[in-house]
Amino acid sequence: MATITLKDLASKLNLSTATVSRALRDSYDIGAETKKRVKELAKELNFSPNPNASNLRSQSTKTIAIVIPEIANNFFALAINGIEEIAREKGYHVLIYLSHELHTKEVSILQHLLNGRVDGVLMSMASETENIDHINELIKNKIPLVFFDRVREDIDAAKIVTDDRFGGFSATKHLLERGCKKIAYLSLSSRLKNSIDRFNGYKDALIESALEFDSDNFIDCGNDNKHNFSLIYKLLTRKNNKVDGIFSASENLVLLTYQICKELNIKVPQQLKVITFSNSPTSSFLSPSLSTITQPAYDIGKEAASLLFKSIEKKKVDYSDVVKVLKSNLLIRNSSS
Amino acid sequence: MATITLKDLASKLNLSTATVSRALRDSYDIGAETKKRVKELAKELNFSPNPNASNLRSQSTKTIAIVIPEIANNFFALAINGIEEIAREKGYHVLIYLSHELHTKEVSILQHLLNGRVDGVLMSMASETENIDHINELIKNKIPLVFFDRVREDIDAAKIVTDDRFGGFSATKHLLERGCKKIAYLSLSSRLKNSIDRFNGYKDALIESALEFDSDNFIDCGNDNKHNFSLIYKLLTRKNNKVDGIFSASENLVLLTYQICKELNIKVPQQLKVITFSNSPTSSFLSPSLSTITQPAYDIGKEAASLLFKSIEKKKVDYSDVVKVLKSNLLIRNSSS
Repeated sequence: MATITLKDLASKLNLSTATVSRALRDSYDIGAETKKRVKELAKELNFSPNPNASNLRSQSTKTIAIVIPEIANNFFALAINGIEEIAREKGYHVLIYLSHELHTKEVSILQHLLNGRVDGVLMSMASETENIDHINELIKNKIPLVFFDRVREDIDAAKIVTDDRFGGFSATKHLLERGCKKIAYLSLSSRLKNSIDRFNGYKDALIESALEFDSDNFIDCGNDNKHNFSLIYKLLTRKNNKVDGIFSASENLVLLTYQICKELNIKVPQQLKVITFSNSPTSSFLSPSLSTITQPAYDIGKEAASLLFKSIEKKKVDYSDVVKVLKSNLLIRNSSS
Repeated sequence: MATITLKDLASKLNLSTATVSRALRDSYDIGAETKKRVKELAKELNFSPNPNASNLRSQSTKTIAIVIPEIANNFFALAINGIEEIAREKGYHVLIYLSHELHTKEVSILQHLLNGRVDGVLMSMASETENIDHINELIKNKIPLVFFDRVREDIDAAKIVTDDRFGGFSATKHLLERGCKKIAYLSLSSRLKNSIDRFNGYKDALIESALEFDSDNFIDCGNDNKHNFSLIYKLLTRKNNKVDGIFSASENLVLLTYQICKELNIKVPQQLKVITFSNSPTSSFLSPSLSTITQPAYDIGKEAASLLFKSIEKKKVDYSDVVKVLKSNLLIRNSSS
């Protein structure tokens, strides 16, 4: 007996193959009567779906989504290029969604993705996100998901990150070796693991040098640049307990620091040494040139995308035990010399 | 007589309303026989679509797409923020697609968008695009489309742009007023209207000063930074016909110029004055601080999105006669003083 195909069913029922396929999958947009007719005939003719026709059956979208907090950030620009290299090899389209660091926006994006418009999701969390129900919903729905850079420990998904703690340690140790005694830490967020790890690395270096951590030197910056400006301004104008070094978790915060130093006529590096996490190509052309801890952003993107495609292709969604840590680089320039 | 609704038709035909709606719109995924049945009954009962049921009828996706050439560019980052402000007000999702300046990639993205996955498209062209069949295909399919910044004159769509010719004129005039006699123009692309307009403004200023345009001073840069580096390097090391000023169409090219000047020990601004189109927040912190022509990127994004939503909401797709020109600003800093 010849194998019955979707096309045979469609022809016998006077329907399109797409309608038959959807009826068999109980799609919402096919009427009950049509579904009944299709299913009955399929049963009668002993139809079994062709396992090679997976594209039709699983409704593969050949599309992945990247959900990131912001776009004016060289780390994400490079990571996206890494992701797109892998996606291009696989013949996939890449959609980029911006959360603008907002929890509500992130929730709305993930809801939008729940309806199966993409085959997988690469994500870096918004700094304002506390409640992670929306992320757990995605995981519960078995949508392949890989986090890169910004993630929390209590999220049960694959993670590609940098050695943030070691990066924070190296940056702070470098400032200490250059003679700094009072170093402030500009935090990106007190919720994100990478910002916390950078802070822990900073504390490790202080402890190693037998220095005590002074909580006045933890500057809890956020997403409001006006607020960040006033926090850093306050730090650099305080009468007592003056700092002689700044380690920043984010390049945006260092630009504010440069601006304030210019206004206050504070000389970098003579009066204040500065180092930051950054992937900006302008670092070496700034005045003074900026010392950085630089993440392998492109490789992080590639690794995250490769893992996501493994998950998509094997239909094995759970890579939640995979945590890959890539090394960052210390690049010493004039701002800390 | 009571008005006949989609629901009535669906119930009489024993089909879902979605199937009836699609059949009436001649959707590809509905069988010929079903379409015939639906259309005949609709005609018989004198069914006319409810103009308020636009969501169902037009299958609104509540999503718009932005197609841009690159992400590591502050102009696009700001324009996207402007677009997202309007989209947020309208309750729309924004998908970002990157063409990476490649024609093939741009074609593939627009094909992906042709299947109705978004309600409208905002686009800035890849510099490598010559053949515009893919854009015309989108226009032919009546998908609302608004261009911003990068567009060609022969494309029949709405355009939100900057006064590039005047910007080029102001930048060049400024260098001439500071004593430059031999000014090179670093072109972004010889295909894009904005790069050509900037070049024409440059020529206007030379003519106004009774100087002749020297074709050796037109540096035809592209997307390959290695190639751009060698072109600028060649320009700055030539024995004869040395330049004393550079006007660049793009911030990326100026970073290469800074790098080469550092290597060759050319002093900016003493030996070479530099000005560029740029929206980078680092311009004032570079060494030396960088004079710029700055586009109202955020407003360009807002204007483009506002026009797109007009087109989406009125279902009037043809705004091809709309060309809106926004003013740029000349910001003089140390690189040209």
